Amino acid sequence: MDDKLMLMIPGPTPVPEQVLSAMAKHPIGHRSGDFGKIVAEVTQNLKWLHQTQNDLLILAASGTGAMEAGIINFLSPGDRVLVGSNGKFGERWAEVTDAYGLQTERVTAEWGKPLDPEVFREKLESDRDKQIKAVIITHSETSTGVINDLEAINRHVKAHGEALIIVDTVTSLGATSVPVDEWGLDVVASGSQKGYMIPPGLGFVAVSPKAWEAYKTAKLPRYYLDLGKYRKSSAKDTTPFTPAINLFYAMQAALRMMQAEGLENIFARHERHRQATRAAVQGLGMPLFAADECSSPAITAVMPNGVDAEKIRSIMRKRFDIALAGGQDHLKGQIFRIGHLGFVSDRDILTAISALEATLQELGYDGFTPGAGIAAAAKVLAG
Amino acid sequence: MDDKLMLMIPGPTPVPEQVLSAMAKHPIGHRSGDFGKIVAEVTQNLKWLHQTQNDLLILAASGTGAMEAGIINFLSPGDRVLVGSNGKFGERWAEVTDAYGLQTERVTAEWGKPLDPEVFREKLESDRDKQIKAVIITHSETSTGVINDLEAINRHVKAHGEALIIVDTVTSLGATSVPVDEWGLDVVASGSQKGYMIPPGLGFVAVSPKAWEAYKTAKLPRYYLDLGKYRKSSAKDTTPFTPAINLFYAMQAALRMMQAEGLENIFARHERHRQATRAAVQGLGMPLFAADECSSPAITAVMPNGVDAEKIRSIMRKRFDIALAGGQDHLKGQIFRIGHLGFVSDRDILTAISALEATLQELGYDGFTPGAGIAAAAKVLAG
Repeated sequence: MDDKLMLMIPGPTPVPEQVLSAMAKHPIGHRSGDFGKIVAEVTQNLKWLHQTQNDLLILAASGTGAMEAGIINFLSPGDRVLVGSNGKFGERWAEVTDAYGLQTERVTAEWGKPLDPEVFREKLESDRDKQIKAVIITHSETSTGVINDLEAINRHVKAHGEALIIVDTVTSLGATSVPVDEWGLDVVASGSQKGYMIPPGLGFVAVSPKAWEAYKTAKLPRYYLDLGKYRKSSAKDTTPFTPAINLFYAMQAALRMMQAEGLENIFARHERHRQATRAAVQGLGMPLFAADECSSPAITAVMPNGVDAEKIRSIMRKRFDIALAGGQDHLKGQIFRIGHLGFVSDRDILTAISALEATLQELGYDGFTPGAGIAAAAKVLAG
Repeated sequence: MDDKLMLMIPGPTPVPEQVLSAMAKHPIGHRSGDFGKIVAEVTQNLKWLHQTQNDLLILAASGTGAMEAGIINFLSPGDRVLVGSNGKFGERWAEVTDAYGLQTERVTAEWGKPLDPEVFREKLESDRDKQIKAVIITHSETSTGVINDLEAINRHVKAHGEALIIVDTVTSLGATSVPVDEWGLDVVASGSQKGYMIPPGLGFVAVSPKAWEAYKTAKLPRYYLDLGKYRKSSAKDTTPFTPAINLFYAMQAALRMMQAEGLENIFARHERHRQATRAAVQGLGMPLFAADECSSPAITAVMPNGVDAEKIRSIMRKRFDIALAGGQDHLKGQIFRIGHLGFVSDRDILTAISALEATLQELGYDGFTPGAGIAAAAKVLAG
């Protein structure tokens, strides 16, 4: 059915009606006082969501643009960096550091497994000359549904003392607590079509005073992604280049909704959905791709136990108008991914799981007792 | 009055209701076949608007991001470039080439005057070693309302044979004919909140085969702005990074409207508005900042003849809810600018001029016969 699509992918995520309505307003001039007030409010509320007093900068760009800005503003050619790579996005940041001629050292883990904080500890401890200038980590690895132990890795970065911690929080911000100031995260980058509940097109970067110190001597070339320009403009409630005005309207509306719900409730909702989805998948007799202790609150990746993952996705889409995500790169066909991030309710989890059960029955999969998935999800949701 | 704002600035420009409605639809997955169809249609229709068969790439970025991509993908550190600078935006591209370590040679003209094609001819003819790798020009200089003689400058670039012509068409595309293929323009960059009639957030770059040849050996670092990635994805009706999905919906709707109107009609409308606005300003006894032969079809800059330009703007805004643009940088207070670009009708021109007359009367300006501005505009609009 047209117009009945339900997104259960890790981005874009569902957008509330009031956010869509806000976005459909006529643009106003971006150099006006009225728009300045919107920039100020949105910036303030994004700081609240990031639990930070650091500068919070807003770019007209996707999350990749924001993360690239978060990397290239604070480093110089030849700088040694450690890049955590255990999925498509971690690997992307290593591609960025390669593209800019940084001395890139990948710290890898198998896709589906978390990065090992001990490897970071060893490398950082043995770096007595303090040549490592940054540690670059993907918090929630969207491609695999794994959440890396940012807190532990960051502790080793802090013990090193010199290196900046630069974090992709694209699918963790707004889904789980990322206490930027408490942990002392230097650069935190994300994009709008995820936990923020608005369409794609805005990128966010939070920058610590320590990172701004590094900015002073950082030599990689940049202009549109030069965060110093954004910082200067942000102090005057404006942007250095034309902002994506209507996405600011959307962000204003979404942040007001998030404030009404409250940080703790938002995080608890995502945690409940993580648990309910995982319990349901187990009820269906299907292996979870990520272990419980490293599973993302935003995405659950499922190994479909002999059923063709792409067939499941296809029937879910055609029969029930539910979009699930497939595996990326070498995982294509081997896993499917359920996004439960952003504007997702308990009802949505039940809906997705019930349609998944119906799909599996249609495919003749007999690895589960019909109803077992929903029963398991409902039990978690009952609390 | 709230919600009664009328934009007569050179961007954002007014957005049609059907474009706003299209933009307010729920996002769909950007890796879906349905979204691929939208990418294909939008790309095809943008090529129509650009009068080109070249690759037409769409970025989640402002016009500055698109133009920076248009520069950095085709050049290497130390390359000699000529940059036309006769306003804020021309100067911006020289800042970009400076930031990337290019050997930047500014070809300047006073703000309000056009670039002199003869200066380009001389520099290009005397470059017998073919060291000039690119000529970078702003077509319509938004800050002054001057349109540069792109066709003449480009002829000299073509005679040189080696250099690429890289053009900022941010306020010319969709307002006047930019025959990309006929003229052989190598790189043409623009942004969505101008002649395209949609809100800001999309950037466009058209790239010629000759520019792609240069891309092969170009060494400036880039990732998010790497147009090779966009080209590869565009061939599969997708984008390398998450696209600004809802702005694609808007662009699809706006391009359908433009196709219904037809290129010639669109250009004739802008030309009529240029003439009507200029005639009206002369009727008000106020000097035009740009001479007729170099005046932009998108923006008319006015020297307010002893009246404070900012007072005019303030009254226009407060009493009549019409936003005009001020002067930028050293022109602040010395000029005001009327945008007549994009979704602007004959009625809008009459409305803006009549409010301007009322404003001048309120300010006690006696340099004109009340009614003379409207009379002059109406005469032009009558054809």
